[in-house]
Amino acid sequence: MFFMAQYKMILDLDTGIDDALAIAYALATPECDLIGIVSSYGNVLVERAAQNSLNLLEMLGHPEVPVFKGLAHSSTTDSFEVMPISAQIHGVNGVGEVEVKKAARPVETMSGVDFFIQAAHKYKENLIIVPTGPLTNLAAAIQKDPAIVDLIGNVTLMGGALTVPGNVTPATEANINQDPAAADVVFRSNLNLTMVGLDVTTRTLLTTKETQTWRDLKTVAGEKYADIVDYYIDAYKVTSPHLGGCALHDPLAVAVAVEPDLVSTLSLNMKVETEGPTVGRTIGDQTRINEPALHTKAAVNVDKKRFLTEFMEKLTQLFQAN
Amino acid sequence: MFFMAQYKMILDLDTGIDDALAIAYALATPECDLIGIVSSYGNVLVERAAQNSLNLLEMLGHPEVPVFKGLAHSSTTDSFEVMPISAQIHGVNGVGEVEVKKAARPVETMSGVDFFIQAAHKYKENLIIVPTGPLTNLAAAIQKDPAIVDLIGNVTLMGGALTVPGNVTPATEANINQDPAAADVVFRSNLNLTMVGLDVTTRTLLTTKETQTWRDLKTVAGEKYADIVDYYIDAYKVTSPHLGGCALHDPLAVAVAVEPDLVSTLSLNMKVETEGPTVGRTIGDQTRINEPALHTKAAVNVDKKRFLTEFMEKLTQLFQAN
Repeated sequence: MFFMAQYKMILDLDTGIDDALAIAYALATPECDLIGIVSSYGNVLVERAAQNSLNLLEMLGHPEVPVFKGLAHSSTTDSFEVMPISAQIHGVNGVGEVEVKKAARPVETMSGVDFFIQAAHKYKENLIIVPTGPLTNLAAAIQKDPAIVDLIGNVTLMGGALTVPGNVTPATEANINQDPAAADVVFRSNLNLTMVGLDVTTRTLLTTKETQTWRDLKTVAGEKYADIVDYYIDAYKVTSPHLGGCALHDPLAVAVAVEPDLVSTLSLNMKVETEGPTVGRTIGDQTRINEPALHTKAAVNVDKKRFLTEFMEKLTQLFQAN
Repeated sequence: MFFMAQYKMILDLDTGIDDALAIAYALATPECDLIGIVSSYGNVLVERAAQNSLNLLEMLGHPEVPVFKGLAHSSTTDSFEVMPISAQIHGVNGVGEVEVKKAARPVETMSGVDFFIQAAHKYKENLIIVPTGPLTNLAAAIQKDPAIVDLIGNVTLMGGALTVPGNVTPATEANINQDPAAADVVFRSNLNLTMVGLDVTTRTLLTTKETQTWRDLKTVAGEKYADIVDYYIDAYKVTSPHLGGCALHDPLAVAVAVEPDLVSTLSLNMKVETEGPTVGRTIGDQTRINEPALHTKAAVNVDKKRFLTEFMEKLTQLFQAN
């Protein structure tokens, strides 16, 4: 099957196990053309995130997708160290301590921030950006070239929590927590923004029953992804035993970017709290509550069954071929 | 017009200026039969709340409605003092320092908690309870007679904030803040519960344009209510200047109790945080996120125009006659 993809997609990943699933989901989705991956710090250091993305792309048969290096730390700090909890959930190497063959392709020389800006001007309303890590790169791009907020078709991000508590503190979710100030820039901008937060991602769960399907394929990608995700499932047994599986945070954001009706959303003018006891909370901006909410939506419910069916169909087919 | 009211309604009020509007709204709503008011501490002391309710009922031509004394302080404290901010918003006497004639009727001897229990058994699914203050009385009734949670038709409460910050701290709204532990008992119970929080009540605003309509009626009730609410509007100019009016918190809850389709709601298993930096927050319970949300709904949007039209029609007609 060959047809012109409707959307150009850029992922912004701190790759990361569920980021690895997001890459696979994007490659397996014909409606979107993955034109590049920007790397971010978060689950791992930015260099490691970039290398993981390159390695996974090559293993999945798509070495043509370029990877760009994003910023190495938050907009309000001078450096970044991986949190112990991140290493516990994703492994020190970000992919569950599984060894994935090093890709031949190197990281691009253009910065991730400049790639965002270039792509926004080139693809305009056909560009979809899916950040599944801190929002540092996107905020930096907006600040460098504010015109892009009116060009980019849509930003569908994994991050935040509106109707449920956060997963770092009761107030904040891990991605937003890395750089609340950058997230606030993004949430208060005029971007067409859809937040795919813990409200919905903790409702889409994977278990070892599904990873066994991949393992049984006896392909490199199938077995590696089964090993990687089993590490993540084991970590969830310790960190979130009430869920009974691992949350498909990042691939859900990719899916919603292409199929918005997978979720129901609430239109709301939002902000990110940048100080005080609720720092890092994604929440409605009470000072704009009586202005029409034209640009910002938060996903509050998800068709779990439909998403999981599509997720397994797409990824199993991709892993079968690689 | 005379017909059998479909619902029996009990208000639980810390009367309070918007509580005074809730009384008027309930009396002006023929679909509900106001069978009693339970008083609570909060905007004022519990004795003052009871007396204010009695005085307003008599002024509005309904001295037949009984008023019951509720608990004097929260479930986790031994006493209660009115917060300075409450006195600033509602006046020390709770009704904007306006003098309302003392009612002839005294407070009932039965406790508010026992009245809840008695009414639940008597009216069952036809009973609607509308608490617009702390949830101390309702939680105490549930703890004294747990069977009532399956009897009561609906609880529609004014309190909490799900998609916007609180108004006491970024985490908590004033009513919930008075007794987070009691609120948690109510939110986690199997009551059919609709939360009408700041998400919607700060979207329904009144200005001096509307109170002038009442003043122009030249009736006692019209002039007194205009004076009372103008005090509240003046306080909002100081405490919430971004709103451009005063929020119709409590009467909106009464309206939603009778006409649920005034708001759009989100079905969600909720809890109230009882400790830590986000104490008093009304939020989804992440441990029950994958269980069906059968009983608890939070209002997230409101048909402001329809509510305000009904509000003004009902109250103006009531004040015209008194």
